[in-house]
Amino acid sequence: MKPLSYRDSGVDIDAKMSAVARARDAIRSTFTKGVVGDVGGFGGLFRPDFGGMEDPLLVASADGVGTKLRVAILAGRHDTVGQDIVNHCVNDILVQGARPLFFLDYIALARMDEELVGQVVGGIATACRQNGCALLGGETAEMPGMYAEGDYDLAGTIVGVVDRPKLLTGERVADGDLLFGLASSGLHTNGYSLARKVLFERLGLGPQDPLPGLATAPDLPGPTVAEALLAVHRSYLGPVLPLVERGLLSALSHITGGGFPDNLPRVLPEGLDATIDPSAWTWPPLFRLLAKEGAIARDEMLRVFNCGIGMVLFVPAAHADEVKALLREAGEACTEIGRVSRGSRKVHLA
Amino acid sequence: MKPLSYRDSGVDIDAKMSAVARARDAIRSTFTKGVVGDVGGFGGLFRPDFGGMEDPLLVASADGVGTKLRVAILAGRHDTVGQDIVNHCVNDILVQGARPLFFLDYIALARMDEELVGQVVGGIATACRQNGCALLGGETAEMPGMYAEGDYDLAGTIVGVVDRPKLLTGERVADGDLLFGLASSGLHTNGYSLARKVLFERLGLGPQDPLPGLATAPDLPGPTVAEALLAVHRSYLGPVLPLVERGLLSALSHITGGGFPDNLPRVLPEGLDATIDPSAWTWPPLFRLLAKEGAIARDEMLRVFNCGIGMVLFVPAAHADEVKALLREAGEACTEIGRVSRGSRKVHLA
Repeated sequence: MKPLSYRDSGVDIDAKMSAVARARDAIRSTFTKGVVGDVGGFGGLFRPDFGGMEDPLLVASADGVGTKLRVAILAGRHDTVGQDIVNHCVNDILVQGARPLFFLDYIALARMDEELVGQVVGGIATACRQNGCALLGGETAEMPGMYAEGDYDLAGTIVGVVDRPKLLTGERVADGDLLFGLASSGLHTNGYSLARKVLFERLGLGPQDPLPGLATAPDLPGPTVAEALLAVHRSYLGPVLPLVERGLLSALSHITGGGFPDNLPRVLPEGLDATIDPSAWTWPPLFRLLAKEGAIARDEMLRVFNCGIGMVLFVPAAHADEVKALLREAGEACTEIGRVSRGSRKVHLA
Repeated sequence: MKPLSYRDSGVDIDAKMSAVARARDAIRSTFTKGVVGDVGGFGGLFRPDFGGMEDPLLVASADGVGTKLRVAILAGRHDTVGQDIVNHCVNDILVQGARPLFFLDYIALARMDEELVGQVVGGIATACRQNGCALLGGETAEMPGMYAEGDYDLAGTIVGVVDRPKLLTGERVADGDLLFGLASSGLHTNGYSLARKVLFERLGLGPQDPLPGLATAPDLPGPTVAEALLAVHRSYLGPVLPLVERGLLSALSHITGGGFPDNLPRVLPEGLDATIDPSAWTWPPLFRLLAKEGAIARDEMLRVFNCGIGMVLFVPAAHADEVKALLREAGEACTEIGRVSRGSRKVHLA
């Protein structure tokens, strides 16, 4: 009888250890002053500095990249999805007024692939640095038989902090608040199953094909399908946190899965509605292409995709000018896309 | 042209919302006094109470269940894996002296299955309650095309706290420290790829077959393969945290992936070795069966499996009697399985 080892069953502990070592430098580059100790202990250590806060609250959120991964796998490009998951999580707690403290990732794949994991962790580290968020830990799981060769899943958890007087819950939202939309950088991390169906199945495109109708000039082919679909989910921390800290916003809504109709009500109090005018902004060409080629109804588009608006700011009318001025200074364009009125926690698409 | 909706591409937002609602009661049952607000916001809110601590450090860790999930899927039983991931994470930060504050889960599957997700979240909530740990958030991701129908992945992130003077890093480990082993409850969450190969492929067993040689009496068939393999990864928080708080331990090692040879060095300082005597305890029948039927070498067994010892306590000889007495009071058996001596961060298997 042939003796069995763990390697025979598809798990290579040595390869895993080596990949961990390679990722160390990228991880260390994210370390903020709160991080205690080095990479490699059982759990990551973080010394919170709540100086100047009246009543610090930890804010935590977990998320995944979804089937955007399928596009990355098809295109063989893995340096963007790590940025997607970090920025997505940063935005998810920013809507409560929180700034990030630390992030932990989870990568699962059939068999350790150092190059792939290195690219993914590199992307995570890049976005963590950009957001001042320490990459405090993570797990890379080899699961032969659960993932097809070359496939992987990626998820993450973020922990941040908000001082309770600045916590945004939606309670402050009032009749007459204006809704300002900040531009998205692409599909962000939602709607990929439908986008793939339209572009790959209906139109029969491959990842390296130019996107039809997206050429910017006759001599320039414009982005490929992969480039357009893998555009990094942007973080809104830079332009938005200063508005939160000055108390200029009544709420924030990150337009993720479920789009406008599902995300806006999460911050609408009893007795109020939100009305969005989807013609108030120019939908980027990618969304127009998806709507046209998929024959997707406008309201379905707004439920599945961000359609060009990734973050919605709820702004009391009295603060509108100041918010606009601060965003302009920050180099951030904003569009008034709707307002809050009396109602019953419904979202109207004008 | 048939108009496409998100549902056509395999994602059902309505089903997801309903499953979230069903999980709410289980989640609420875990809420400790630190939790602020209710389920359903963007991020979970936690108000840390660091009263009585000199220098509180947050400790965070992420992990997955690994291919133990494959056994759960094969057996159609999903109420145990959630307990596994929580207890695993609790142990991973306990080794630094931390008590858990909150946990977030990540479940990924091809298509929303409310029954399955309900069972998984129920298990997570059970273990969170048992460990005094709030289930503060999580993500359930539908990823058609990434997971086979009926398959799913499960990961989690835990955040806990330790007062810095009680932090265990391994620095206090000294020549002559005794190593006490606490019993595991089964394979915990490691070695499943190899165990499945032995039991399902070599022995041709199914999940409902009795485990050969594990009958406890002629009339009693003993556990089935599924029962034995799905035994819940136990938490060591109850018996061990009081020892940490009294300052009786110099280190702790959770015997997970990589077994004794990879996990003990993580707390061994320069200049010290650890020697384990694998004959000091009786290996439970499941591990003896795996070694025999897989013709797996002893040292390979000790690298892949916990072999009956899930947590190793590093105990200064002067505290040995007090530790033994406290464990006995707590109803916890312990076995002296080795000791620390001068050397070079190596683990010897006697």
